[in-house]
Amino acid sequence: MTSTKKMVVEWKGNLRLEAKNEKGLTIQFDAPKEHGGEETALSPMENVLAILATCSSFHVLTILKKKRLNVTVYSVEAVAERREDPPPRVFTKIHLKYIVEGTNITLEAVESAIKLSEEKYCSVGGMLQKAVPITSSFEILKEG
Amino acid sequence: MTSTKKMVVEWKGNLRLEAKNEKGLTIQFDAPKEHGGEETALSPMENVLAILATCSSFHVLTILKKKRLNVTVYSVEAVAERREDPPPRVFTKIHLKYIVEGTNITLEAVESAIKLSEEKYCSVGGMLQKAVPITSSFEILKEG
Repeated sequence: MTSTKKMVVEWKGNLRLEAKNEKGLTIQFDAPKEHGGEETALSPMENVLAILATCSSFHVLTILKKKRLNVTVYSVEAVAERREDPPPRVFTKIHLKYIVEGTNITLEAVESAIKLSEEKYCSVGGMLQKAVPITSSFEILKEG
Repeated sequence: MTSTKKMVVEWKGNLRLEAKNEKGLTIQFDAPKEHGGEETALSPMENVLAILATCSSFHVLTILKKKRLNVTVYSVEAVAERREDPPPRVFTKIHLKYIVEGTNITLEAVESAIKLSEEKYCSVGGMLQKAVPITSSFEILKEG
């Protein structure tokens, strides 16, 4: 069973581009100043880390909610090492650190949610892990 | 030679998340309604297509500019087929269609710029092509 997804990316001058989905939602991109851009928006490679962390978080948050755990604060720090030479300037490793805070959060629940997300559900990770090693860790800030 | 890149993704309620780079630039994400989101922003998988097309465009536009070609209108349509079942719901193929308009644009210049970008310079494509077959085509709307 498959579906189709379409995006249109339009040039807005220099290295600024705007992407639009089929419902009209848009997002802006720009390049870093050292590569000729004006830094008015995030770069594509910064977005690689952002979408990997976000995609995995969709599933982690959904699983924790289904377990009736009360997450109050949640974030992910994504850090990557990037090869600068020779091109393409790909990431050579990525680490995600999940930080979860809540009133009844347990280590086992967070660990299992992250494992399920990363190994089974996260689509972005399912693709990216074929190109770059991805590791993760987590921290629970407060336990109820 | 390597560099490091860091992004922080923060949960903003339900399935809304905000990613921030080290300079403070931010981007919003949300999930489609059929997956529990509110569609206030693009989804991570829509962004996969957006950043692939944008990354490649950075190099295509830069190469065409270096060749002193006068591009006036430029866009890319990115279409992907997505496996819906079993998870992860990865893309199984991606096609990019570049559309270039300008006053002195030649078929050879566009073809060579796309080839260089896709085969040598585009970092996002350099990673994604290890996970999914990517094809491309192009159209020149007006020749000078």
